[in-house]
Amino acid sequence: MKANLLYEGKAKQVYTVTDDPNLLVLSYKNDATAFNGEKKANFSGKGRYNNLIAAKVFEYLHVHGIPSHFKETLNETEQLVERTTIIPIEVVVRNVAAGSITRRLGITEKTPFQPPLIEFFYKEDALGDPIINDAHALFLTDATEADLAEIKAIAGKVNEQLQAFFKQVNLQLVDFKLEFGRNSTGKIVLADEISPDTCRLWDVETGEKMDKDVFREDLGDLVHVYDQILRRLEAVK
Amino acid sequence: MKANLLYEGKAKQVYTVTDDPNLLVLSYKNDATAFNGEKKANFSGKGRYNNLIAAKVFEYLHVHGIPSHFKETLNETEQLVERTTIIPIEVVVRNVAAGSITRRLGITEKTPFQPPLIEFFYKEDALGDPIINDAHALFLTDATEADLAEIKAIAGKVNEQLQAFFKQVNLQLVDFKLEFGRNSTGKIVLADEISPDTCRLWDVETGEKMDKDVFREDLGDLVHVYDQILRRLEAVK
Repeated sequence: MKANLLYEGKAKQVYTVTDDPNLLVLSYKNDATAFNGEKKANFSGKGRYNNLIAAKVFEYLHVHGIPSHFKETLNETEQLVERTTIIPIEVVVRNVAAGSITRRLGITEKTPFQPPLIEFFYKEDALGDPIINDAHALFLTDATEADLAEIKAIAGKVNEQLQAFFKQVNLQLVDFKLEFGRNSTGKIVLADEISPDTCRLWDVETGEKMDKDVFREDLGDLVHVYDQILRRLEAVK
Repeated sequence: MKANLLYEGKAKQVYTVTDDPNLLVLSYKNDATAFNGEKKANFSGKGRYNNLIAAKVFEYLHVHGIPSHFKETLNETEQLVERTTIIPIEVVVRNVAAGSITRRLGITEKTPFQPPLIEFFYKEDALGDPIINDAHALFLTDATEADLAEIKAIAGKVNEQLQAFFKQVNLQLVDFKLEFGRNSTGKIVLADEISPDTCRLWDVETGEKMDKDVFREDLGDLVHVYDQILRRLEAVK
């Protein structure tokens, strides 16, 4: 079914699909990177967890009225998605201060954001994915003001749904990163992945970090943590 | 007339005024700093030029319907202004790409921005005045969405007027930084200074840089350049 490798990123490979130009296969890798690629490691099993967790997330969002590029799980590490042209903006939604924003703006970790804070970063590895405002996004990409408003509205809805989704399994959704793409009809849809690589998740009871910060901050066994998340999600009726 | 030193910044001292709590004296210093204070020097005469040039700018804006905190020139290095509470946002307006944005976003120098690009930076020396978006500004300051819209609208009008002002003396207004404050009635007014320290100005014919970049980039005699600007402005009828 996979035809050609179209693109290889830090955490996934993207393949074209034989006989259907509107589909792609995402193949989740075991590689982990942090700090714009400065820290790297390989975790056996990580690709499988992210693939299976992302599938559960996208299925939940679909049921709750938020469409995405996700079509179906193909196997343990691969999923079939609608082909989109990615808008080169990383959209970060923050419910609680953690990570880069605490250093960048001097905001104490765990400070709540109400309303949730939305940030755009220009998706450009060579520049270190710099933070941008709406005016930059309009200049740097083909997105219009209406597109940016739609992206923010979808991001807000995703946040509400994902907070409920993770709360079921006793996880607090601290922040997360989204990417959006345009499909063949020009519609903007949620794309890329949503996984513990792209979300900060804290155990509601213990406060334990259960996401890629375990790797960033050398807090323990990343694969064990991702396994715990998948087990909790699989136990939900 | 000056009572107490209220605040000393990198380029100015701010004094209270005897018997009138709604006025301040701005005293322009000869110090020049760049790169968040990493590069420093003292230029005899610089304070005088910025004081006299800023006065001409604020007078022009006043005549063209844009109020500011400026009241009158007191002497060669000092001006009387309305006391305001500064909103801690540095508002940068860019007509052409130059300086930090070229490195931050990989935009080639001299690329035009149409519409002009407006950026907010959080005025906080300890953090290096980081760039922020509107959501950060709402979280970090007491400004409302309506305030931010008003600030952007005034910044746009200032840009139109200043482009015309400097064009009279054969200077291209590349970009500039504004600060805003709230006066005793709560109204948002243009504050701080507008001078070759806070504007990028390029000679229309030669392309020569005629602003603080002469100091940042060691391009020549800063005071001579500021003297040229004042002479050109004084020659305007």
